[in-house]
Amino acid sequence: MNRYSPNNLKRPSKGLINIHPIQRGGILTEEARKVLIEWADGYSVCDVCLEGRVDLLKNPPVDALKQDIAEFLGMDTARFTAGARHAKFAVMAGFHGGIVVLDSLAHYTSYTAAELNDMKIYEVPNSGYPDFRIDAEMYAETFERVKEDTGRYPDLALLTHVDYRYGNLADAEKVGRICEEYGIPFVLNTAYSSGVMEINGKKLRAAFIVASGHKSWSATAPIGILATNYEFSDIIFRTSKVRGEWSGRAFTKKEIAMFGCSPVFGLPVMTLMASFPRVVERVRHWDDEIEKARWFVKEMEKIEGVQLIGERPKNHTLMHFESPAFHSIAKKHKKRGYFLYHELKKRGVFGVQAGMTKNFKVNIYGLSREELGKVADAFKDIAEKYGVEVED
Amino acid sequence: MNRYSPNNLKRPSKGLINIHPIQRGGILTEEARKVLIEWADGYSVCDVCLEGRVDLLKNPPVDALKQDIAEFLGMDTARFTAGARHAKFAVMAGFHGGIVVLDSLAHYTSYTAAELNDMKIYEVPNSGYPDFRIDAEMYAETFERVKEDTGRYPDLALLTHVDYRYGNLADAEKVGRICEEYGIPFVLNTAYSSGVMEINGKKLRAAFIVASGHKSWSATAPIGILATNYEFSDIIFRTSKVRGEWSGRAFTKKEIAMFGCSPVFGLPVMTLMASFPRVVERVRHWDDEIEKARWFVKEMEKIEGVQLIGERPKNHTLMHFESPAFHSIAKKHKKRGYFLYHELKKRGVFGVQAGMTKNFKVNIYGLSREELGKVADAFKDIAEKYGVEVED
Repeated sequence: MNRYSPNNLKRPSKGLINIHPIQRGGILTEEARKVLIEWADGYSVCDVCLEGRVDLLKNPPVDALKQDIAEFLGMDTARFTAGARHAKFAVMAGFHGGIVVLDSLAHYTSYTAAELNDMKIYEVPNSGYPDFRIDAEMYAETFERVKEDTGRYPDLALLTHVDYRYGNLADAEKVGRICEEYGIPFVLNTAYSSGVMEINGKKLRAAFIVASGHKSWSATAPIGILATNYEFSDIIFRTSKVRGEWSGRAFTKKEIAMFGCSPVFGLPVMTLMASFPRVVERVRHWDDEIEKARWFVKEMEKIEGVQLIGERPKNHTLMHFESPAFHSIAKKHKKRGYFLYHELKKRGVFGVQAGMTKNFKVNIYGLSREELGKVADAFKDIAEKYGVEVED
Repeated sequence: MNRYSPNNLKRPSKGLINIHPIQRGGILTEEARKVLIEWADGYSVCDVCLEGRVDLLKNPPVDALKQDIAEFLGMDTARFTAGARHAKFAVMAGFHGGIVVLDSLAHYTSYTAAELNDMKIYEVPNSGYPDFRIDAEMYAETFERVKEDTGRYPDLALLTHVDYRYGNLADAEKVGRICEEYGIPFVLNTAYSSGVMEINGKKLRAAFIVASGHKSWSATAPIGILATNYEFSDIIFRTSKVRGEWSGRAFTKKEIAMFGCSPVFGLPVMTLMASFPRVVERVRHWDDEIEKARWFVKEMEKIEGVQLIGERPKNHTLMHFESPAFHSIAKKHKKRGYFLYHELKKRGVFGVQAGMTKNFKVNIYGLSREELGKVADAFKDIAEKYGVEVED
């Protein structure tokens, strides 16, 4: 049991600059940190629940937060979910057994949500190496392919706004317009965009906006957001119709795809709430983040053979590099592929996956220019140490 | 936005003895409190994820915790889920469209999990007022009723070990034996028992043990546990079989009913982990909790007309009282039903639902004898203030 002692439970990234692709947008704000102790116990927010659903709470103001977030995303209404994965599951539960079209860069949880709901999946191709773009027009083409194949158009179309592999920013507005033309409800997965970038679901013609609180809204895990319009809210947030055949019990307020009352009652919703004002503010500075991201790419590509994969110029802070030179070093190094991880750690930088050298991903969101310089210098320094050329 | 400022986000129960029925078992241990800051950021535990699933993590030792918890519950294996509600959903997803028998005191999330999985529900009757007991033999009778009605026995039977309405402790072993005789997989919902009481799934013949970390294992919300035996693990924890029709992508390690990788990656699993050694220790002192509960009932029933509803003697710390005298006071009081809530709060006691006087529920788990005396005195003092007789 000693392994579970708090003294033995230290974060591996403690005290280091963490550029792990999934960690940057989830770092708590100061405000969220301030509410940690107050709301840490189990069901803390349920102290004065009268309505039996967390999203209807007045104290703390979860109901108000729900409406403010819906408005912030340009949608009519919203719910909190156990992560974006639960939100996607909940949408697809409304189209159980149907056909979904999704981009071929989608997160695995988009595929498994479809699978769990017995949906047939069609993929929108991407342009392949080296930029892996999703061309919006290919949605129309894929819809037609579904029609040819099955005799009807798909029930749902999903686009990953920013994909987790290359950090490409897809043209959501164009996909939205195509979906609108076809009359196919459009799900936009903004796990890497809303919360750090401005998103307006109305403008993008989204029927559903899926977001991730722990990925991009500075909340503790797990919390997702599922925002929609009145047209779909009765389907997706459908309430229980069951009646106990002996007891007559009924639960008419409970939304079944939310598991009755969504399991975010405690720190997830409270940290999301405490961070929200700052999130609203920070999305206005996205341009600055892009500028830093492009600067970082330029610096990294000064290292011989290092090349950005995915679209250029960068429109997001998550990025994917290939680095044949680091890979060559790994082949001869006694730590093999782990050398890069260890060399970076020695230089105060964490988050490149241990064992990766040929390709690796980083996310620089929210780093100061000074920290970012330190990260670029660490990579360059390692390159030079092993005789890889670095431009001045 | 001012309403979301940390200064305005104080817990209503702060500084009070909280006897809210769902709050006692979720109060964090000192050890869990110690890991809060360290692991608060979003996906914190994923820093060094190599396997792509939270339950396989070696650092922090989530994989070890999973095995230790399975053993603690007398089961072969376990997973973490977004609450007990997600665990029940995951079990029923393995029996989609089938028939489930459940006790008529079951939590609403048992009904809605069945509804979400298109299962037909049959209820095991309870004995009604005033003790509302579930007679284990009625499971056999209900199985036969299902057979008569549908031509076959049910696919699944669920028992709520301790129900949330009366805090009755059902005879799980007897229900388990009946299920075994019929060859029907037995789901035991231990949301109010495991974590505070000793549970041995093997002895109880459970195919599935469902538990709630934020309700009874001193963890932050949301985290549930789903433990099972090897016989069922491949069905319930089934991995993704889908293959991208254009890309060929596959996700063969991801468990689809867990949403691929269960959304507990951060404080929920870390606080469960830090609390676990103390939970293992505390379940041995359950007798003492029962003794306190019975003492409290005796004290409460000294108030004229106050009567315990549910089984007697008490076998759990969650209890339900009817109190016609408080109800009579409410009728004449200018605060109406809210008077009891306010009078208790003035005396440092929180958790009786605001507006309730005719019936109310409390949970005294983990209160010291001194605190418990204070709670009993508060009720008696209020009674006397309004001229209700209290025995010496």
